[in-house]
Amino acid sequence: MSTSIRTGADRTLELLALQVGRPLSEVETPVAVVDLDLLEANLQDLQTYVDGHGIALWPHTKTHKSPEIGLRQLELGAGGLTVAKTGEAEVFQEAGASRILVHYPPFGTDKWERLARIAAEGVELTVAVDSLAPAAGLAAALARHGARATLLVELDVGLHRTGQTTAAAALALAQSLSQLPAVDVVGISCYPGHLQGDPAAIRRNVVAVDELLRETRDAFSASGIRCDRISGGSTPSRYLTHETCVNELRSGTYAFLDRVVSGDELEKCALRVVVTVVSDAVPGQIVVDAGSKTLTSDDHPDGGHGAIVGWPGANLHTINEEHGYVDVSSLAERPAIGDQLQIIPNHACGCVNLHDGLLAVRDGVVDHVIAVSARGLVR
Amino acid sequence: MSTSIRTGADRTLELLALQVGRPLSEVETPVAVVDLDLLEANLQDLQTYVDGHGIALWPHTKTHKSPEIGLRQLELGAGGLTVAKTGEAEVFQEAGASRILVHYPPFGTDKWERLARIAAEGVELTVAVDSLAPAAGLAAALARHGARATLLVELDVGLHRTGQTTAAAALALAQSLSQLPAVDVVGISCYPGHLQGDPAAIRRNVVAVDELLRETRDAFSASGIRCDRISGGSTPSRYLTHETCVNELRSGTYAFLDRVVSGDELEKCALRVVVTVVSDAVPGQIVVDAGSKTLTSDDHPDGGHGAIVGWPGANLHTINEEHGYVDVSSLAERPAIGDQLQIIPNHACGCVNLHDGLLAVRDGVVDHVIAVSARGLVR
Repeated sequence: MSTSIRTGADRTLELLALQVGRPLSEVETPVAVVDLDLLEANLQDLQTYVDGHGIALWPHTKTHKSPEIGLRQLELGAGGLTVAKTGEAEVFQEAGASRILVHYPPFGTDKWERLARIAAEGVELTVAVDSLAPAAGLAAALARHGARATLLVELDVGLHRTGQTTAAAALALAQSLSQLPAVDVVGISCYPGHLQGDPAAIRRNVVAVDELLRETRDAFSASGIRCDRISGGSTPSRYLTHETCVNELRSGTYAFLDRVVSGDELEKCALRVVVTVVSDAVPGQIVVDAGSKTLTSDDHPDGGHGAIVGWPGANLHTINEEHGYVDVSSLAERPAIGDQLQIIPNHACGCVNLHDGLLAVRDGVVDHVIAVSARGLVR
Repeated sequence: MSTSIRTGADRTLELLALQVGRPLSEVETPVAVVDLDLLEANLQDLQTYVDGHGIALWPHTKTHKSPEIGLRQLELGAGGLTVAKTGEAEVFQEAGASRILVHYPPFGTDKWERLARIAAEGVELTVAVDSLAPAAGLAAALARHGARATLLVELDVGLHRTGQTTAAAALALAQSLSQLPAVDVVGISCYPGHLQGDPAAIRRNVVAVDELLRETRDAFSASGIRCDRISGGSTPSRYLTHETCVNELRSGTYAFLDRVVSGDELEKCALRVVVTVVSDAVPGQIVVDAGSKTLTSDDHPDGGHGAIVGWPGANLHTINEEHGYVDVSSLAERPAIGDQLQIIPNHACGCVNLHDGLLAVRDGVVDHVIAVSARGLVR
């Protein structure tokens, strides 16, 4: 049935294609736009940093879900691409990526089969796991295909989400994994997602993260388990990576940045949502045509649902599905019905996941459409 | 470009098609599923209620964004369908809906042109507005097409989002709108989205909502402005509609229900997200393969991100993009890695908007795929 259905994605990409060549001020709203110069600067800045420190960059594609941007990251020098879903691995394989890290425990016969096929077709596949079962299923599928993959053992370094919580437990898992066919344990991984907010606190906590990583690395080495790859990092902690033993950085949000992670560098955010004021009927307030289905309802520690560029006193305090409520009571001059505004969303990854395409803008004009080809997808 | 790109929606619908015929226990996860018997009961229950009270049902399609379900609502007796976006109006027009209410102020030459085209092609189009500018743009486009549309004047009855705040202001707007070509003011509308939570409080507040509606209706009548249609309602207040002067009910979420609006009738929720346990490495916790990109991060007044069916003591307290953290420390027996669970999401509309297709399930077997053809879409 899928081939005959005209999907929302088809319609959206058709409509976005009509915007190419328009000045940004004339685009249909609400729409997500990417400033190509800011994107390129963000990509280049982190690549330059890792190059200077001998760290490999394996960007997490969850932020952009776009082959165009993933391939650009590889061109700039990324060692490989990171994904969370089997379907994302397939999208980036088809786009031409030859080294893919699935940083998510895959579970299910279909997923194991699909991942094994990717490996059999020549992708250097790595999968991070924190238990035996997903790896055992994958290993069996790989063996059937005559293919191999490498494994990282995931450690919980403080987020308390996934990952073995001690070096001893990680080692025990690595030893079990080493008994499986068709896979090779080659290192460890972590996601320090608890490192957010105050830069000084992040720096202090990075030390603790590093201690567990080193302890585990040493335990692996002492037991004859390879630990060539130590995968870690996040966008808030990315520029501290060289102070740790992490030699592969999986930052994702750095490509776009957003209201949560940009700190005092909001002007570096490459992703914005262009909206139109559609109502001013309630005193002291305007309403814009973007809400949770356009911006994401992912929140911000300080509240609010996005930063309105150029209107620091305008507070986007509440969103419904298609409405953004902006308190403009403190403003001397106020946007009027029909005016266009730009919003920097709280969370780039959640926002992009709502959109099938992004308008790529250079010098204020829509240059082309960036297809978000890996959005949606059953895992 | 859109015709040649294989989108996430294409991939998802292909993968979902492979699930048809499988028992629910064997589907790929994470995936959104709809119990067809529960859906049908929810649709029929509200239709029976409105039929018994001479109220017209104009279901808001934002909840399901699906032609299949919209057409079923019309078959059961709905007077028309409600949408928020121009693109949604186009999807439901193509599906065959002949009466469409755009309950959102349209702004922009493209949108006015597209809406005028829909009207020119024979759809009985109604648009709700709370200011002159969107209606003036639409009227000019309609006049160019030789088409007509009807207008509702939106009132703010307590949500303080959009809508004129007094009967006098609504009347003044109606008088201005009456000067426009190609449009006819035929009534008023409201969205009582502030009516949530305690049923007794909802009932008290419905009285206040009704007072403003009646006052405005009477002001319209006294000034010779038609007020045939009084459009209102929401899912939490839907069964109180007959106690008000509302004669058109735009409830949307009633089709699926969800954790927020179902109250103590969680078992009536037709939409569930099927997930798999992928980690138990952190003590007292399991992690499932669905987070904000699958469930939505729309919240619940009591906290938590969804109800896990059959495991009342399991608390889905935190989500990241692809991970759901479930506290299972109070459980004697715990789900294991690889086990499948069903989650009733906080907010059906936000959840469905993340999915390109839903698995329609009857008697525990996947019957077909419901395409969410109106998801995404630039307005």
